[in-house]
Amino acid sequence: MAEKDIFSEIPQLNYQEESGDYKNPESFDQLVEARRSCRVYTEESIPEEIVRKCLSLAVLAPNSSNLQPWQFYWVRSADKKQKIVEACLSQPAAATAQELIVAVAHPEMWRTSRKLMLDSFASQKDIEVPKSAISYYEKLVPLAYNQGFLGIFGRIKSCVLFFRGIKKPTPRGPVSKQDMRVWAQKSTALACQQLMLAFRANGYDTCPMEGMDEKRVRKVIDLPKGSEVCMIISAGKRAPNGIYGPRIRFDEKLFIHEV
Amino acid sequence: MAEKDIFSEIPQLNYQEESGDYKNPESFDQLVEARRSCRVYTEESIPEEIVRKCLSLAVLAPNSSNLQPWQFYWVRSADKKQKIVEACLSQPAAATAQELIVAVAHPEMWRTSRKLMLDSFASQKDIEVPKSAISYYEKLVPLAYNQGFLGIFGRIKSCVLFFRGIKKPTPRGPVSKQDMRVWAQKSTALACQQLMLAFRANGYDTCPMEGMDEKRVRKVIDLPKGSEVCMIISAGKRAPNGIYGPRIRFDEKLFIHEV
Repeated sequence: MAEKDIFSEIPQLNYQEESGDYKNPESFDQLVEARRSCRVYTEESIPEEIVRKCLSLAVLAPNSSNLQPWQFYWVRSADKKQKIVEACLSQPAAATAQELIVAVAHPEMWRTSRKLMLDSFASQKDIEVPKSAISYYEKLVPLAYNQGFLGIFGRIKSCVLFFRGIKKPTPRGPVSKQDMRVWAQKSTALACQQLMLAFRANGYDTCPMEGMDEKRVRKVIDLPKGSEVCMIISAGKRAPNGIYGPRIRFDEKLFIHEV
Repeated sequence: MAEKDIFSEIPQLNYQEESGDYKNPESFDQLVEARRSCRVYTEESIPEEIVRKCLSLAVLAPNSSNLQPWQFYWVRSADKKQKIVEACLSQPAAATAQELIVAVAHPEMWRTSRKLMLDSFASQKDIEVPKSAISYYEKLVPLAYNQGFLGIFGRIKSCVLFFRGIKKPTPRGPVSKQDMRVWAQKSTALACQQLMLAFRANGYDTCPMEGMDEKRVRKVIDLPKGSEVCMIISAGKRAPNGIYGPRIRFDEKLFIHEV
């Protein structure tokens, strides 16, 4: 069965990566400790190449089926920046920020990305791409991510998967436009976290903001239909009063369960 | 106006953190470079304390209004583990994994978390918590996150925000149960990325999996109603054939825009 090939078999590939030896727990502990959401920044600017580098690192985050359903709008025009600050309710984390980056989730991105994956497979010289991988992007991706007109195809899939699932393990989604929103937002958030850590590793702080006027933000950066803002990330050099208080985390037992 | 106090004013606090000096770009570049989604693991186990440490680091991720709407189920029982592997369609990334962690988004968590935030404010000794922060968790959080019976309150909010938004910047959501799903999933994904980087920093690889039978997973770990699986993260020591090929990322110009 095709599905067995794709999912449960280990393909015979001639590829190896040495990066498996990397280890630096102390540095990561310090990084996580140092990353705090910053609400007030100084007037020190961030060198352009550092912002670019952090954005490049962000899009190396893992993501669903490597379909990269994210976009990052680095707001550079002074006029647009001012409008984004206002859309962020003029909160100091935006108003005092040196840089503002709008992270956008794009649920429809799979349509172009799956073709780019197939192009990329076709151009591989060093490894032979297994047929199952090609078939995954050719057939399974459209089947999984297309929800059809008014989401009708999603509804049909949901029924089929329900009956299939009675007897054997079966993925249950995405089967709606709403599931596709969640799908794209999740991968985008993975990249956002990588972006925030990248800034911190380079000596700068960030603040992720969700409380904003999305309608106004969409207009300012001219967002394509169907996409939606994941969060706006501000960045800059931390002011002495930039962190409002010690980090508060509730008892881990509420969140981490061993089962 | 209360809103102005809460959002746009910088509170007078007597708090400072020195971690703003942290900088280690090289180490982070290496970490991001080394983190690849691993599909095949060796039989080497991960010391228990490392898994615990990585989970503790994960929940230090930033999250929406610090409401921490996430849960992590570390699947330790051999029986449950086998069932989760099957629910992950027996893919090698699950079947050969030493550890499996189910990351769960919990849209209703704000109800308890906002109380925990208020408790935590009440117990602060070193800093005086501004009234606006207390009022935020007492009044604004329920207003923002409660969608009411059948989401009716959300619909009403949506109308009110629409009219308010004509004249001034106004947050547009969350105004539905679906928005709440997105809300919780986003924060959970931020923690997931931190978790995966934590494992890599400690010398182990991970693979985030979304293609799974969520219904079966829910049953195995007895998930509370209303919560939903964000992703399952497998972890272990990378096998020589663990990485299937070189990292593929499409042209950055498709994803990173300067506006």
